[in-house]
Amino acid sequence: MPELSPISVAFLVFPNVTQLDLTGPAQVLSRLGNTTVDLLWKTKAPVPTDAGFSLLPTKTFADIESADILCVPGGFGTMDVIQDEEALGWVRKAGAEASWVTSVCTGSIVLGAAGLLKGYRATTHWASHEQLEFFGAAPVKQRVVSDRNRVTGGGVTAGIGFGLALAAKIRGEDHAKFIQLSIEYDPQPPFDSGSPAKADAVAPERYWGLMNKSAPGRAAKVKAIAKGLGF
Amino acid sequence: MPELSPISVAFLVFPNVTQLDLTGPAQVLSRLGNTTVDLLWKTKAPVPTDAGFSLLPTKTFADIESADILCVPGGFGTMDVIQDEEALGWVRKAGAEASWVTSVCTGSIVLGAAGLLKGYRATTHWASHEQLEFFGAAPVKQRVVSDRNRVTGGGVTAGIGFGLALAAKIRGEDHAKFIQLSIEYDPQPPFDSGSPAKADAVAPERYWGLMNKSAPGRAAKVKAIAKGLGF
Repeated sequence: MPELSPISVAFLVFPNVTQLDLTGPAQVLSRLGNTTVDLLWKTKAPVPTDAGFSLLPTKTFADIESADILCVPGGFGTMDVIQDEEALGWVRKAGAEASWVTSVCTGSIVLGAAGLLKGYRATTHWASHEQLEFFGAAPVKQRVVSDRNRVTGGGVTAGIGFGLALAAKIRGEDHAKFIQLSIEYDPQPPFDSGSPAKADAVAPERYWGLMNKSAPGRAAKVKAIAKGLGF
Repeated sequence: MPELSPISVAFLVFPNVTQLDLTGPAQVLSRLGNTTVDLLWKTKAPVPTDAGFSLLPTKTFADIESADILCVPGGFGTMDVIQDEEALGWVRKAGAEASWVTSVCTGSIVLGAAGLLKGYRATTHWASHEQLEFFGAAPVKQRVVSDRNRVTGGGVTAGIGFGLALAAKIRGEDHAKFIQLSIEYDPQPPFDSGSPAKADAVAPERYWGLMNKSAPGRAAKVKAIAKGLGF
């Protein structure tokens, strides 16, 4: 392997994160070569995820100011993060210094709340798409959206394609294709129900029902938080 | 949501696991409803993965004898697991009691070493495919292979489709499709290089080179271990 420039990746991790939003791109980006991957939170205590196990931060906000790649994953825990001045303050500062300011799923709502998507095109999980507008971003319905140094991925599993797209920008297409082969990313989903356009008509409604959330209620709350933050 | 029967899922976790082999299906299976997800190893100390961070076991081998679903992820750490009588012994016992004996990536080599794939069709990461034969399994080149209660997935990202296929067997296709929508699994990889057949001719060779491993050397070692285990 030719000598590669060092790349640091910092993922925000927080209670009730959708862990695959983080672990998917972490698998891809850890194969950039000459790379360090860190998981950041307030303390190094285990952080509970949405999937029954915890993730362990490798560093705290006090340990690290930024990284070449900042990546914010999503999940229902983002509602607390966008009301948490300590977390938002770290994201704001790290984002100002990072070469790449990125997110997967509703992590883009956190980037938005930190003021990092004002005037940028971006994407997020389909169920929260319109909320990007509350923070001055322009929502685009694509699995990966790049706008200058902002690269955002759609919901959960979109983080894998997001990681490959970012890998190509940083190390070239050839290296990204090699990572794709190494993780055997040749998807053949057993069903074709991965977007609201493909799922049956009641599916989005059922999604909110099963998650025990109200879509309009949630959007209104995020809007009010955005307003409180000065958007 | 109608009352669902409780389902327990036990993932083996071990040093140098390919973390997405575990975290991908864990995301899917945690949404089966009325489900517990556990990560099992010898102690509860953090277990280093291949991606720069550790995973935290939720239980130890002493805590839990089996689960409804046993799932063994893969990674280069499997070479140590198949030489570790304590780990193999737990997998053997848990597999004998589980309703579903499953793996992702080279996790099937561990199932094989535990004697759980003798006479079964199975799959694994493309780079280790032929090694399944050393343990009396019949390798099938598919992303997900089901044979009676054995369900095995291909390399790394195949664990997501594997999880959805298993979800459909357990909770029905409708529930599986809903999980697919919730994780927005509507893949659109930026490149088409996810299998050796699609990658360029030197890619498999390059894979082994960059991983600092020798394909024939590794296969010979696994074969010798299989022989030592009585296969």
